[in-house]
Amino acid sequence: MSIDLNSDMGESFGAYTMGADDEILRWVTSANVACGWHGGDPHVMRQTVARAKALGVAVGAHPSYPDLLGFGRRPMQITRQEARDYVLYQIGAVRAFVEAAGLTLQHVKPHGAIYNVAAQDRELSLGIAEAVKEAGGGLILMGLPDSETLKAAQEVGVRFAREAFGDRAYNEDGSLVSRKIAGSLITDPDRVAERVIGLAQGRVVAITGKEIRLQADTICLHGDTPGAAAIAKAVREALNSAGVPVRRLGEFLGRGV
Amino acid sequence: MSIDLNSDMGESFGAYTMGADDEILRWVTSANVACGWHGGDPHVMRQTVARAKALGVAVGAHPSYPDLLGFGRRPMQITRQEARDYVLYQIGAVRAFVEAAGLTLQHVKPHGAIYNVAAQDRELSLGIAEAVKEAGGGLILMGLPDSETLKAAQEVGVRFAREAFGDRAYNEDGSLVSRKIAGSLITDPDRVAERVIGLAQGRVVAITGKEIRLQADTICLHGDTPGAAAIAKAVREALNSAGVPVRRLGEFLGRGV
Amino acid sequence: MSIDLNSDMGESFGAYTMGADDEILRWVTSANVACGWHGGDPHVMRQTVARAKALGVAVGAHPSYPDLLGFGRRPMQITRQEARDYVLYQIGAVRAFVEAAGLTLQHVKPHGAIYNVAAQDRELSLGIAEAVKEAGGGLILMGLPDSETLKAAQEVGVRFAREAFGDRAYNEDGSLVSRKIAGSLITDPDRVAERVIGLAQGRVVAITGKEIRLQADTICLHGDTPGAAAIAKAVREALNSAGVPVRRLGEFLGRGV
Amino acid sequence: MSIDLNSDMGESFGAYTMGADDEILRWVTSANVACGWHGGDPHVMRQTVARAKALGVAVGAHPSYPDLLGFGRRPMQITRQEARDYVLYQIGAVRAFVEAAGLTLQHVKPHGAIYNVAAQDRELSLGIAEAVKEAGGGLILMGLPDSETLKAAQEVGVRFAREAFGDRAYNEDGSLVSRKIAGSLITDPDRVAERVIGLAQGRVVAITGKEIRLQADTICLHGDTPGAAAIAKAVREALNSAGVPVRRLGEFLGRGV
Repeated sequence: MSIDLNSDMGESFGAYTMGADDEILRWVTSANVACGWHGGDPHVMRQTVARAKALGVAVGAHPSYPDLLGFGRRPMQITRQEARDYVLYQIGAVRAFVEAAGLTLQHVKPHGAIYNVAAQDRELSLGIAEAVKEAGGGLILMGLPDSETLKAAQEVGVRFAREAFGDRAYNEDGSLVSRKIAGSLITDPDRVAERVIGLAQGRVVAITGKEIRLQADTICLHGDTPGAAAIAKAVREALNSAGVPVRRLGEFLGRGV
Repeated sequence: MSIDLNSDMGESFGAYTMGADDEILRWVTSANVACGWHGGDPHVMRQTVARAKALGVAVGAHPSYPDLLGFGRRPMQITRQEARDYVLYQIGAVRAFVEAAGLTLQHVKPHGAIYNVAAQDRELSLGIAEAVKEAGGGLILMGLPDSETLKAAQEVGVRFAREAFGDRAYNEDGSLVSRKIAGSLITDPDRVAERVIGLAQGRVVAITGKEIRLQADTICLHGDTPGAAAIAKAVREALNSAGVPVRRLGEFLGRGV
Repeated sequence: MSIDLNSDMGESFGAYTMGADDEILRWVTSANVACGWHGGDPHVMRQTVARAKALGVAVGAHPSYPDLLGFGRRPMQITRQEARDYVLYQIGAVRAFVEAAGLTLQHVKPHGAIYNVAAQDRELSLGIAEAVKEAGGGLILMGLPDSETLKAAQEVGVRFAREAFGDRAYNEDGSLVSRKIAGSLITDPDRVAERVIGLAQGRVVAITGKEIRLQADTICLHGDTPGAAAIAKAVREALNSAGVPVRRLGEFLGRGV
Repeated sequence: MSIDLNSDMGESFGAYTMGADDEILRWVTSANVACGWHGGDPHVMRQTVARAKALGVAVGAHPSYPDLLGFGRRPMQITRQEARDYVLYQIGAVRAFVEAAGLTLQHVKPHGAIYNVAAQDRELSLGIAEAVKEAGGGLILMGLPDSETLKAAQEVGVRFAREAFGDRAYNEDGSLVSRKIAGSLITDPDRVAERVIGLAQGRVVAITGKEIRLQADTICLHGDTPGAAAIAKAVREALNSAGVPVRRLGEFLGRGV
């Protein structure tokens, strides 16, 4: 009944800063480090890995479409082979910093649009999963439960972690409520914390009011929303109080899904 | 008395093709694979590694300044730390493809302007050597003999391979004659081959006519000049006829320089 | 009954060359100059404009999605506002070279994927048309007949040129036969020339064998296919022999569509 | 005895924000708009031009080396022709937004490293001045007094505005004191304002305490330093109190320098 808390990190670029990495890093167990394709650069990658190491946070790659101008948030039509090549490139780049710091790369969480498109696109998910597989080292792929990404991970044979969101409303079928709908985003730290405790135990109240089953291995904490640090703190402390072990994904996720 | 033959490879990019990789690969023992910063892209990297593997050619990283528009040929003023971060990033990216192919990354040869600037710049060379060191795996750094790069490699503690050029004229002090001077470039395949045999044995005739000592571990064969394939073939065959063993750098280069 | 012949030009980038610009330029009346987002760079733009000027060829902008790695051939999901901003930026960039050469920018032809997606996407077409409108100077927008792009041009109030292809098969409804279908591409110079003469007169034989009406103001000649120069020459000469005036679009296209 | 106040603007990029544009724009008369090569993007350009227009601020182009990763702050070795092509491209891009807004582009201020290198590099300055010349429209080039850039502007025949800095210490010869030296930067708003009044009248107290002559047409107000808005406000108000007319450069700068 352990849970991992993950957050996107290292999305600053050159002279531009983004996120509240230092504050969020204190509360999470897994950091998704941007690889330079939507944000991040080699210097930021090195610094982010060093900070994660200092706080005992596990590091993963956070690969993206090649779209710095759009911060990786825009769907692009790429082939399975392109996805595979792009993701492997980015895994390798971040892994170099991770291993130079004496750590082991733990996971891969696709960023933004490629994450969302892949959830419903078998070919794209297969390309991503193949890259994770051939990168070796038992990397864990993060994605939505009940997604094409999960299926691709099973088919290709890579470990998969089901990700859930404490600050997003769910439909009764376990899918996320569109951000365009009122009430889709939950911003009260206490409510988010309460929902995360539920998710750690396999359940969440859907937007309709009905409680549904939803198994999650890792919970995403956003770093770029207002009040992000307060929410992260509330979630971590609530989990501690509830006696839910918060651990790095790699420590408790089994080999199979 | 072994010698390695290296060539820059995988410098095509997206829809653009460059070089005569397939023809040159037949004659070399080490391929310097572009990492996407001056040329190359993830798809080209994968293909180039596959071709090198099929021909038993060792693979190295060929990192550059971040300058796709200028093909990495323009000096840029970057710090030691930037050099270290940029080179480590690029090593990691190409290493992912190398290891996915079941190979081991052999070496690092900086590309174009960063190679030339580093030869005379202690700080830049230190940044590069530090990246090679922390990348691990006993990578070999290629550079000019008697350069700041060689000194940096010794100071940081990384293996170093002295590179020479069969198609370039030398001054009596062992430095390269500027390309702007007539006679600096040798294009006749037989003359290049003859010079390479000399270089493999530690000597070359300078532009003044005097024979000088010049120790080389690896000879660069250019892939983008007219007649490149013919020169590469002539060099390899001449070395074979002369009984000079042509081997992958990593097979004969010792731990120290 | 005049016709314009256009071709994509200036798609070389930095150290990379592409296309047979010099050969094709001899036969066309309008050059679509790449703006640096899928190909082309400031130096190539200057040279291409100079060559077009020397041959009396009119110059247009050839804007793209921001996708150098994919050569602008991959659909990307961008907003109407992004399309408008991106296209205006690229028009301005190429116009600077055109006006510095003492010429006037004649038209705008979107490149690759943005052209194809826009043909069926009202919002994207409106963004493009709005950019053409606000760029001023009576620029002509090129696109497919009977497309969303044509409708957007009419709605926004910009001149529109209907483009047809001599080397592509058509369905009976005037749409292009998918490249995946056998017979979709016509490579025989004489056949292409014959079809272009028909198109100049408002008709073409569909892949079914039935002759259909298809009004075209400009015919695209591809520059990057094998035999491109031979086809271009055959087309131009056939039009001359048939007495069809081949003129720059801006000289004969009226204000309305 | 009029003076212009200029500031760099529109350096945000995609999802990244930078600067305090809205606050600074209230106090300046000329905005240097980033063109996408070190910062800025088409959307930011459009917005920045709109804001400048609303406040009656004149707009100029702020071209850079192609170095988004380094924010244009790193010297790059480019040729005179490359400088000319790059600057013309960027002028054209920003001019499209300026003219679409119904304004006229007023000036060109090179950004960061290209500005500093050009000040001492005749060839680079000539390339820049040639671009400004061929862009047409009587554009004003901003640069350091007594610089190679000023000489190039005179040689090529473009209007030149001498720029001074209220927050930087000067040597007795009129050159800027290196930022590495203590006391080189002045951060007290009142002292900066006092110095600007002096500069508007052709004099400044050097770091040695001696008053020197220094003619300036425009004063740079930095937007990215702490307290930037307070300094900008103090400067503008002090000039008003002192009766120094603060006007857009193009309104008072003559044809020759």
